[in-house]
Amino acid sequence: MQAVFIGIDWGTTHRRASLIGADGTLLSERADGEGALACAGRFRASLEALVAGWPQADAGLPVVMAGMVGAAIGWQAVPYLPGETPLSDLARHLVRVAEAPAGRRWSIVPGYCLRGASDVDVMRGEETQLYGALQMLGPGASDGCYVLPGTHSKWVRLHRGRVTELRTYMTGELFALLRQHGTLASAMQTAGSNAAAGLQHADVADDPEFLRGVAAAAAGPALTHALFGARARVVTGALAPDAAAAYVSGLLIGAEWADAQRLESRGEPVRLIGEPALAALHAACARHHGRGLEMLAARQIQLAAWRALANQDIP
Amino acid sequence: MQAVFIGIDWGTTHRRASLIGADGTLLSERADGEGALACAGRFRASLEALVAGWPQADAGLPVVMAGMVGAAIGWQAVPYLPGETPLSDLARHLVRVAEAPAGRRWSIVPGYCLRGASDVDVMRGEETQLYGALQMLGPGASDGCYVLPGTHSKWVRLHRGRVTELRTYMTGELFALLRQHGTLASAMQTAGSNAAAGLQHADVADDPEFLRGVAAAAAGPALTHALFGARARVVTGALAPDAAAAYVSGLLIGAEWADAQRLESRGEPVRLIGEPALAALHAACARHHGRGLEMLAARQIQLAAWRALANQDIP
Repeated sequence: MQAVFIGIDWGTTHRRASLIGADGTLLSERADGEGALACAGRFRASLEALVAGWPQADAGLPVVMAGMVGAAIGWQAVPYLPGETPLSDLARHLVRVAEAPAGRRWSIVPGYCLRGASDVDVMRGEETQLYGALQMLGPGASDGCYVLPGTHSKWVRLHRGRVTELRTYMTGELFALLRQHGTLASAMQTAGSNAAAGLQHADVADDPEFLRGVAAAAAGPALTHALFGARARVVTGALAPDAAAAYVSGLLIGAEWADAQRLESRGEPVRLIGEPALAALHAACARHHGRGLEMLAARQIQLAAWRALANQDIP
Repeated sequence: MQAVFIGIDWGTTHRRASLIGADGTLLSERADGEGALACAGRFRASLEALVAGWPQADAGLPVVMAGMVGAAIGWQAVPYLPGETPLSDLARHLVRVAEAPAGRRWSIVPGYCLRGASDVDVMRGEETQLYGALQMLGPGASDGCYVLPGTHSKWVRLHRGRVTELRTYMTGELFALLRQHGTLASAMQTAGSNAAAGLQHADVADDPEFLRGVAAAAAGPALTHALFGARARVVTGALAPDAAAAYVSGLLIGAEWADAQRLESRGEPVRLIGEPALAALHAACARHHGRGLEMLAARQIQLAAWRALANQDIP
């Protein structure tokens, strides 16, 4: 099978390269921990090492990169697209890497910036997943509400192939901060050695304290108060220290769902693009709020995006 | 002037001892950084050093301590009082220090624990300040809403000398965490070298970005989303990095006020017990929400508490 395209999902801390064949087959895949933060000052060498042995140099294959590689902290700061730009136009907005040697077709997918009346929000990398969802589901059927959970969890509305709403939550980042530092860290210390264990581990979804956190968040308290409440419940014996991480996880993910219920009059199902462990936590939230949740596997969505881009004219 | 009483406000990181005379005069005062965390394993020696030379040993003066000295991380874990206990009964609930030598009248003020239908909240140290406010204002005039800002900001309602509502916010702690760690730390890095500078510095109250943060919080978004919004505004150039700390400070303190507006139908003035720098920030929030704010100086309130306790029968 002839290779025709290389797509790289290049995030802050990890990256994954996919070699795509002429019929859309995934011919080969490589992943490592060389995220944008780790590659500062040596992006070109790092890319060449990642795709070494793959037929990109001689065959002039397009290498398309998405994610924080295009941020100010990445290889090359690529300006955001406005929400009005249809996702289907993504290929024509790819930005060539200035540092690319002659003959190499290296480019970066731009992120999106959505401006509201009083706020602004941004994404880098998720636009490629949404492009994949659009390809997989089609322009009409892809309409609706999406959640892409993680360190910076994204809630998105697609309408006719455009990103019409975007809200980012620092859910995973704040959980990791609270696990490692401050007065809640000691309360949560027995729940696991991994700083993100409570969010990463699917078992938490079955923990009654996770659901209690979701319910507490549904009332819409200030999060700083709800978080102190976790501490107050521990010091008064109402919450076992080894369940505190599950409760805090429920508060943080539950805050996303409380916002979604408050901001969206539509009760339609939410589509989740992500990994199974986080999907289980969101499924529990969806049940609490009486919403449906459709799972879309992140890897399949990403491949759908690369396959579609492989069929486009790439600069 | 004969000395009759020693009161010590002994918090997590600092303490302040006051020597009170027979007519209520403050005869002497000592403060240092020997907070409860620093004194683990050597509270007795640390107390003796603090009051060395003061006439407590020979005269059998009561030494009354309030704050985290009575927590599990402190000298001796003192059980919380329930909200039903009138503040005026505080003296009779003081708990003797088990480690006190014969002839020494060392005791600790218990904190309060308030249980609601679905939540629980606690305070240690603030009950003594509220007792001081009750003494200063009288049992009827002290009715109303109080804010005691800080690392763990307390919102309290007093009614007929009882604590009927209590909500704690991890405002100062979360601000310090976000200043030191994670993706917002770099956005806020140019705003000052002190991790708490943005909250401590009264100038922030005049910063338009502080007020913008207060206004953004008033809409009641999930705080994890509002915090990412600070980052999104910085990366899109809408917020100067050196104003980001003021904006985040406005979001966090503003979240307290948004909660207060949502939870309290009464529009009565709020009384603030605290230091001038934080008081200025809360005054700006009060103006935004059309509420009055009365300032009560924390030092005067604390002295009123010690003076009143000096006139009580201390165990």
